Amino acid sequence: MGQAALPAPLAVSIGDPAGVGPEIIASAWEQRHTAGLQPFLAIGDARAIRAVWDGPIATLSDPTHAAAAFATALPLIQVDDPGDIIPGQPNLAGARCALDSLELACGLARQGMASGLVTGPVAKSQLAAIGFAYPGQTEFVAERCGVAAGNAVMMLAGPTLRTVPLTVHVPLAAVPRLLTIDLIVTRARITARSLVRDFGLDAPRLAIAGLNPHAGESGTIGREEIEIIRPAIDQLREDGIDVIGPLPADTMFHPAARARYDAALCMYHDQALIPLKALHFDDGVNITLGLPIIRTSPDHGTAFDIAGKGAASSSAMIAAIRMAADCAARRR
Amino acid sequence: MGQAALPAPLAVSIGDPAGVGPEIIASAWEQRHTAGLQPFLAIGDARAIRAVWDGPIATLSDPTHAAAAFATALPLIQVDDPGDIIPGQPNLAGARCALDSLELACGLARQGMASGLVTGPVAKSQLAAIGFAYPGQTEFVAERCGVAAGNAVMMLAGPTLRTVPLTVHVPLAAVPRLLTIDLIVTRARITARSLVRDFGLDAPRLAIAGLNPHAGESGTIGREEIEIIRPAIDQLREDGIDVIGPLPADTMFHPAARARYDAALCMYHDQALIPLKALHFDDGVNITLGLPIIRTSPDHGTAFDIAGKGAASSSAMIAAIRMAADCAARRR
Repeated sequence: MGQAALPAPLAVSIGDPAGVGPEIIASAWEQRHTAGLQPFLAIGDARAIRAVWDGPIATLSDPTHAAAAFATALPLIQVDDPGDIIPGQPNLAGARCALDSLELACGLARQGMASGLVTGPVAKSQLAAIGFAYPGQTEFVAERCGVAAGNAVMMLAGPTLRTVPLTVHVPLAAVPRLLTIDLIVTRARITARSLVRDFGLDAPRLAIAGLNPHAGESGTIGREEIEIIRPAIDQLREDGIDVIGPLPADTMFHPAARARYDAALCMYHDQALIPLKALHFDDGVNITLGLPIIRTSPDHGTAFDIAGKGAASSSAMIAAIRMAADCAARRR
Repeated sequence: MGQAALPAPLAVSIGDPAGVGPEIIASAWEQRHTAGLQPFLAIGDARAIRAVWDGPIATLSDPTHAAAAFATALPLIQVDDPGDIIPGQPNLAGARCALDSLELACGLARQGMASGLVTGPVAKSQLAAIGFAYPGQTEFVAERCGVAAGNAVMMLAGPTLRTVPLTVHVPLAAVPRLLTIDLIVTRARITARSLVRDFGLDAPRLAIAGLNPHAGESGTIGREEIEIIRPAIDQLREDGIDVIGPLPADTMFHPAARARYDAALCMYHDQALIPLKALHFDDGVNITLGLPIIRTSPDHGTAFDIAGKGAASSSAMIAAIRMAADCAARRR
């Protein structure tokens, strides 16, 4: 007679309440039917959402009520009241709200009371001003999950391309000396495992980009391909991982080339982000691989300049919610 | 009573005769009506073309006869016979043929007997083996035109994006120290002039990419934007050039971003080539700006692996011929 328990809802942290987070979360809820979204639960500030949206909000104290409430209202757990928030005008109370939301949402996911974590966009400079000592939300979430930051792997995913940048927010001049065989092997293994576990691929295919033009052209335009990337690829093949490369970065992102792999490991930020955003600017999702929980995020910032103006697209937030739900379902 | 003289034909060098040059030139001629191509004249080897194509060839000694011959046959000027050429099997006689073709086609353009130069793909290693001492065809053409190689600017152009890489075939690690204010200013001026003269834009808009992630984020992720790129932009604005930047490279290539400029100056090879080839892999054109002649080229290589198999796409060659004709018409 027992009824199968509903899966726990996703927890969606509001991000900076003065950014576009409140409106894109509300918009995603409005589109829950057409977009086919599983129940989710906003964690943040009701007034910040009401400032930009006049739909129904169900303020809850118990996250297990979220799935039932979701049909008729946006379920929300309120964190400490940040006071009046004006869209586009971030302040320290708002930063505190963003951090409290992140912490609570992450905690719900870790405890299994949420099936995954979707994080709204935050302003790093605002968070730094209240003493947040992490480079970004990813590192915070990794630490709370007991995972070394180096083993939490950022992947950017759009409908036709997934990329993993091996170095991120460092000057371009620093990139060559940060690349090591171990870095590539470690991140590639985590990526391959996640493609099986979270994306349901039986035999994931990785592509690894070269660092230099034409992937170094046999060492005549740089030697990192020979000294670092190719040995890493050899190790990965010994592990039985299906991997091609080092590929010339300029010829690996057109449609026929993308069809040959499931994820591309890239040597630096823009090598991964240029093709991803050129192709999927509006619906790119940032997903953190290698965590015990599912964590996704829309691949854009707070967009303070358009917050509250009704101009923000919720496509990426919807894609992030959908991807988190899909990955969570595969892990069950 | 006088009849307006026909414009001179374009001169199309065959490139390496064992590569895809012969077949894509023949294919372009076959599509001359549907693609709306102005008359062009192949410079190269008739037998290499016959090895991959059974259409009509009109071997000429006088280029002024090309326009009349073009309606019914592919006009061709024969260079020294390289002997039998087998598609996909380059040899030194073929490299000599490629160089002779380039030299003659360039000479016709310089003398005004051709309205522009379109170069077929060559194999740099083959040319080097016969003593060709230039990094590529571009530098050879520049020298023949009396232009310093540094003032011959490579632009990659597709239907929705034009990019100019400021550094090209150098290791990524070498890029930061090669960037100077003078390099950016010089290339940007040449680009802006060409957009007026060759592309018919009254008020060209340039975008200049940053070098580092997020264009350095106010100096926290690298200082080249502050020390080199921004001062260059200031100089260009003093010249009255419409320029934006330094832009974060990852957010400047989606459709709405591309609509804001006519050409993007990029700091390194893959920053320019990744978006161009992700978006326009099959019809990208390489055009050399700053020369007294028009020079274009399909943005791909010899593709020895598919030469002679009927698998090569002539889209980029057709685009290169069309762009050369359009630019030549604007200069007249």
